Amino acid sequence: MFLKDTWYVAAWSHEISATHPFSRTIIGQPVVFWRGENGEVVALPDRCPHRAAPLSKGRIEEGQIRCMYHGLKFSSSGACVQVPGMQHIPPAACLPALRVVERSNWVWIWMGDPALADPGLIPDTYWLDSPAWRYQPDYIHYDVNYLLIADNLLDFSHLPFLHETTLGGSAGYAESRALVERSDSGVRINRWFTDGPPAPFVKNLTGWSANVDRWNIYDFLVPGVLLMDSGSAPAGQGAQAGNRENAVQFRSAQAITPESEHSSHYFFSQAHDFAIDDPRVTAQLHGDVVAAFKEDWDMIHAQQRSLALDPDFKMMPLPVDNALGHFRWLMNKRIKAQQQRVVQAGAGLQSVSATVTA
Amino acid sequence: MFLKDTWYVAAWSHEISATHPFSRTIIGQPVVFWRGENGEVVALPDRCPHRAAPLSKGRIEEGQIRCMYHGLKFSSSGACVQVPGMQHIPPAACLPALRVVERSNWVWIWMGDPALADPGLIPDTYWLDSPAWRYQPDYIHYDVNYLLIADNLLDFSHLPFLHETTLGGSAGYAESRALVERSDSGVRINRWFTDGPPAPFVKNLTGWSANVDRWNIYDFLVPGVLLMDSGSAPAGQGAQAGNRENAVQFRSAQAITPESEHSSHYFFSQAHDFAIDDPRVTAQLHGDVVAAFKEDWDMIHAQQRSLALDPDFKMMPLPVDNALGHFRWLMNKRIKAQQQRVVQAGAGLQSVSATVTA
Amino acid sequence: MFLKDTWYVAAWSHEISATHPFSRTIIGQPVVFWRGENGEVVALPDRCPHRAAPLSKGRIEEGQIRCMYHGLKFSSSGACVQVPGMQHIPPAACLPALRVVERSNWVWIWMGDPALADPGLIPDTYWLDSPAWRYQPDYIHYDVNYLLIADNLLDFSHLPFLHETTLGGSAGYAESRALVERSDSGVRINRWFTDGPPAPFVKNLTGWSANVDRWNIYDFLVPGVLLMDSGSAPAGQGAQAGNRENAVQFRSAQAITPESEHSSHYFFSQAHDFAIDDPRVTAQLHGDVVAAFKEDWDMIHAQQRSLALDPDFKMMPLPVDNALGHFRWLMNKRIKAQQQRVVQAGAGLQSVSATVTA
Repeated sequence: MFLKDTWYVAAWSHEISATHPFSRTIIGQPVVFWRGENGEVVALPDRCPHRAAPLSKGRIEEGQIRCMYHGLKFSSSGACVQVPGMQHIPPAACLPALRVVERSNWVWIWMGDPALADPGLIPDTYWLDSPAWRYQPDYIHYDVNYLLIADNLLDFSHLPFLHETTLGGSAGYAESRALVERSDSGVRINRWFTDGPPAPFVKNLTGWSANVDRWNIYDFLVPGVLLMDSGSAPAGQGAQAGNRENAVQFRSAQAITPESEHSSHYFFSQAHDFAIDDPRVTAQLHGDVVAAFKEDWDMIHAQQRSLALDPDFKMMPLPVDNALGHFRWLMNKRIKAQQQRVVQAGAGLQSVSATVTA
Repeated sequence: MFLKDTWYVAAWSHEISATHPFSRTIIGQPVVFWRGENGEVVALPDRCPHRAAPLSKGRIEEGQIRCMYHGLKFSSSGACVQVPGMQHIPPAACLPALRVVERSNWVWIWMGDPALADPGLIPDTYWLDSPAWRYQPDYIHYDVNYLLIADNLLDFSHLPFLHETTLGGSAGYAESRALVERSDSGVRINRWFTDGPPAPFVKNLTGWSANVDRWNIYDFLVPGVLLMDSGSAPAGQGAQAGNRENAVQFRSAQAITPESEHSSHYFFSQAHDFAIDDPRVTAQLHGDVVAAFKEDWDMIHAQQRSLALDPDFKMMPLPVDNALGHFRWLMNKRIKAQQQRVVQAGAGLQSVSATVTA
Repeated sequence: MFLKDTWYVAAWSHEISATHPFSRTIIGQPVVFWRGENGEVVALPDRCPHRAAPLSKGRIEEGQIRCMYHGLKFSSSGACVQVPGMQHIPPAACLPALRVVERSNWVWIWMGDPALADPGLIPDTYWLDSPAWRYQPDYIHYDVNYLLIADNLLDFSHLPFLHETTLGGSAGYAESRALVERSDSGVRINRWFTDGPPAPFVKNLTGWSANVDRWNIYDFLVPGVLLMDSGSAPAGQGAQAGNRENAVQFRSAQAITPESEHSSHYFFSQAHDFAIDDPRVTAQLHGDVVAAFKEDWDMIHAQQRSLALDPDFKMMPLPVDNALGHFRWLMNKRIKAQQQRVVQAGAGLQSVSATVTA
């Protein structure tokens, strides 16, 4: 059971073109994306209503899409505008267009009730589209349930172990206390590790060897969006009190979107606001992040295989798991509320119907 | 549930030899084929009754087959003729031989009630064995249910879209009306597309650029056999009235045989009666057909994946689907009749048994 | 359902080191192995109790193992000795150590009730650790249920067919009668083939062409351990009466250990007591055995695929199957006894509990 009434990241802007349809399966439903005549992102179910051929194997014709199996053509609103050999187009040949919003290089999609699709709910990721920041957008495919990835992102105590030589650093980081604030839309995590050695990737960027004050402050929001302010400053200068002079600062935007119960999309970026005109810095930072995320990928797939061998395994909650506990609770609550709306809508229809037939 | 009481194409003649056993799974049952001492095709279940080892991993010995796990030997009629270390061969060690008929380069097999296996029911494919025609026999394996391939072959309106640059041609072809005659054994489809540009593969063969009258006249027969007269003649000379002067003519024989519920065998050939002494023509025609069938393969597998994601998907019938609708109905009817025969046979046995025990 | 209260071969000694954890799944349960500070083999469930990460992706630290996801550390007895960020370690963080015994180059493991784990039950394989014998230890992974491999090893009548050019030899071998003695722990099989041509692998080793007396005398013990005295001597010199002069003699130790219901571990060795200082002899003998075991692997996987296509297939018992019939019966008996013990233990607990709450 997936949360449908929420905004999911569906793609990076550059993945979607006006000439070639692009397919991605979101919470179990294949979706075809392309750009309409005004460059706007369009999304339809990636399944021709005739015989289920994927429209993504079709052809874009002047902002519309033609199924290249038997030739049915659809407008960007999902209206079927041509059926070869037929004068009258059956209403059942139309497809429900999906709500999409393109913002700061991310394409967001709403898979649930369109009446609830409020673009105001989309979190702000301004730095993905700001001249003050540089980053390399990237994507990894996971063959695991999205919650295992969320667990990983909600507890950075794994950094010094899993990412010892990349993002990690000294074991002391795991001892630092993360402040967790719960909210209705996720958690805010605030972790400072003061007067410790710089993380390997920070050393790579800066050459620093003296101790630093390091912070990771991030929101992790339903349905799986991580937005982070992180960085390191020379130890003791008062970074925690606000002095970020000589600091290296990062803005991270990451999003997990379920593909199926057993696979997930992972969009990520790590932006920097220093040396923004030096593409080597961007590339090196990106390379270090990718190396670390490969470590996550390996471990989370191993964890998934381990869980598959024992479906009765109960995870043992530790204090470091309080953020992920809240997030899982929040997802369940949202999904239950969604189910409740569906039941109520059904009851409402029934009540109307009772009136009509009375 | 498969139709068993029918003739399936099991192999091309050249696939079966007198020296090496050949295995192919037909409607879920592995079958081993070889040639007996008189060159006749022999077929037995490909499973030793002892411990289920495949006989196809065995050895042909003077027209008989020896299981190379523990050495049991079987005659071409399925009789077990040797069990190493035993004097008396248990009756349970014998295998039921399957009815096979080799005709015009195709090997047909009857998987159902042998009492119903009338070779007179095998359709005529004389041109597969005629000096007046040339072709290259071929085979493709599909990982889809056979009905999706049948659907494809029963509706040529996909030609100008899926096969735009191979078999297809102008979109007008899809607008031409196919005359469909239903029968108890399948459908006959008669489609003329007059005064249109030649199909790309016909252009390749002939160099023609002027318009042609093009026909596709074919029977599509239970359980999945397509036999087609097709061709193109200069437009307006009266091809539809019977004048095939200067025409290029083809005879196509294609057969779909289920391997399992999720996979299928596809045998095909496209014969020509012109330039029969020029192997380059045969090769070029074959190459163009294979290129087109690769397009079918890609689309049908994509369609299969799409359907797998939504088992509740209902196909939307269009007028172009009338032939495939009849074929699916006919297959269901035959399968129901087969089930009825099994039930009646059971009732007959019960009645006999009641008499005996009374 | 697996037999748990038994000793399984888990590994060759050389597979387990003091520096890198080693993972192997035994009867469905992943186990991590390493050597403790005194070189002893240690085995724990390969699954961190925190979030199920495999400990085998962790790090050995002074004879203890650290999970490299979130840093929990475990002693060789399974005690959790560190949880980063916590002072008090929850008791649930401990793991039950598994009983292991290293003997003659094999590591044995007991997956069931530790109270029953009597090392005295481990069969003697002294030649695996004797200066009088030479061999090359080896391992093959199978994707089949372990019983199909046991069947193979329990009936050598397949040698002249499946292994015609390797271990096999003349078809007469299959006609020789194997004497089968049943016991509570397995079967003893005694087969002599007198005055027959030497097996191909013996020819390779000795250059012999004259006839030999050949023997295969072996125990096949629960849960799947084959211990064999085999060899060939010049025909007629009285080898069967005890004269092994000029004979070539082998000691084979083989063990099947289920990995899952559908996959198995196969440990094997073929030791020789002649030319023990000539590594070419050891290598050649090993090469011939591996070639033959590849023939088994191919056939048993083919048999497994054949059985998968027809789950209702009933094997047809022949006289050659008497040993395997007893072994399958014995395994079932042991598994039932194990279930009975569990039920009784449950009843005992209930009775105690009734007393307490009364």
